[in-house]
Amino acid sequence: MKMKALVICAGLSLVAFACHGSEYPRFLSQMKTGLNGHYSTQVSCTSLGFGVEANNLSKWKTVPAACQEYVADYLLGDQYRSDSKTVCREAYFYAKTLKFTARDVFVFDIDDTTLSNLQYFANHGFGVEAHNATAFKIWVSFGEAFALPETLVLYNKLVGLGIKVVFITERPVDLKDVTISNLKEVGFHTWEKFIARDPAIYSGKLSNAFKTSERKKLVAEGYRIVGNIGDQWSDIVGEKKGFRTFKLPNPLYYD
Amino acid sequence: MKMKALVICAGLSLVAFACHGSEYPRFLSQMKTGLNGHYSTQVSCTSLGFGVEANNLSKWKTVPAACQEYVADYLLGDQYRSDSKTVCREAYFYAKTLKFTARDVFVFDIDDTTLSNLQYFANHGFGVEAHNATAFKIWVSFGEAFALPETLVLYNKLVGLGIKVVFITERPVDLKDVTISNLKEVGFHTWEKFIARDPAIYSGKLSNAFKTSERKKLVAEGYRIVGNIGDQWSDIVGEKKGFRTFKLPNPLYYD
Repeated sequence: MKMKALVICAGLSLVAFACHGSEYPRFLSQMKTGLNGHYSTQVSCTSLGFGVEANNLSKWKTVPAACQEYVADYLLGDQYRSDSKTVCREAYFYAKTLKFTARDVFVFDIDDTTLSNLQYFANHGFGVEAHNATAFKIWVSFGEAFALPETLVLYNKLVGLGIKVVFITERPVDLKDVTISNLKEVGFHTWEKFIARDPAIYSGKLSNAFKTSERKKLVAEGYRIVGNIGDQWSDIVGEKKGFRTFKLPNPLYYD
Repeated sequence: MKMKALVICAGLSLVAFACHGSEYPRFLSQMKTGLNGHYSTQVSCTSLGFGVEANNLSKWKTVPAACQEYVADYLLGDQYRSDSKTVCREAYFYAKTLKFTARDVFVFDIDDTTLSNLQYFANHGFGVEAHNATAFKIWVSFGEAFALPETLVLYNKLVGLGIKVVFITERPVDLKDVTISNLKEVGFHTWEKFIARDPAIYSGKLSNAFKTSERKKLVAEGYRIVGNIGDQWSDIVGEKKGFRTFKLPNPLYYD
């Protein structure tokens, strides 16, 4: 070090405590460790959220029981909608800059991107319970999901700009009709294509493999994917992912 | 909808209020909008953080003045270190699963991944001031940055496992010696390669172009990049990005 601290720092400071030979302050605590190296439940669960949303944690199965209240509070409070708005607004700002053609499309995922499954997950432990594919399919078959409101705003703005929307969803083809009814009922009225998962083609394939394959088909048909929005990283990584991608929050599950 | 709500919901509920014909509750407020559609500073700034960390916001220049206190509180409080720990721990859990060879390397970025520039940014508005390349270079030339403690833990564990570390940094070659002194002083003692930016080769190139080019050279030399950790998305996207990548938090700047 070129300049050594000449004095020993003492006392507490909320931000910075200048006690150093250079003009740069020393932080007494530098980076905090929490009491005995442990963090509060709120801090730990927020970090899990960061780990998930920044694509650091993969293949996790369920929300830890200690984070159930955190996840519920997040989804039912202001933060989830505000986070969603930040993403959707950025997607719109980007779309406005495009000189798009009739072959340009914006890809939307469905579950927890366009339609919310929050009512289902509220009755199934907010992600703490192991996923129950049968119960989830029954919920989807009701066609009662509400629109994610910020996604609906984005969708309407894109349609207003004249950009075509393509839905690509993990939902199986036998749920296509009820999904389309649900979409129309909550305000999504027009799209270029609606692509559901055909189990005959994609049996046993991961979500990302299915979505990448369908995007490549779109491009082979002459479409250009200018944007792509989803709540899972598997929606927005891989070949032909789109010129820009947008990650909506989802602390409930990993797909 | 197959089942219509039969009653009108009334009253307030913190979590869910069952007032629907099906077993699924209706949320009175569904997704909150904040008072008059606006959110508190805390909520808005947290959303900006989400936008940045999940790679939704790009090419932003400075932290909004309204978020300065939020950013300072985040970096100086428990959350920054807890978030960093979540990422570094996951990277270690991943590394432990590898059957690595002598050609396997783990790439580390330097600034705000390995060495912290927090002391500099605390004196320059916590990201609110426009970036001053001259002042920043002077700070780096002091060689006084402290180690990011969770990254140091990860580094020591990887070295203990026998995985080689490669540093790739945007810092120019004329700051290589002082950076190496700084690294050694704070606990980073060994590495396979230290790659600084050579302005003669990469003049005017974006950070990602430089880093991708250097990673491709590594692979051409026979190395296999098993992991890659950085605080900027430009560190961890592009060709030969590594089998798994890890994104540390950084709300201060976009590179």
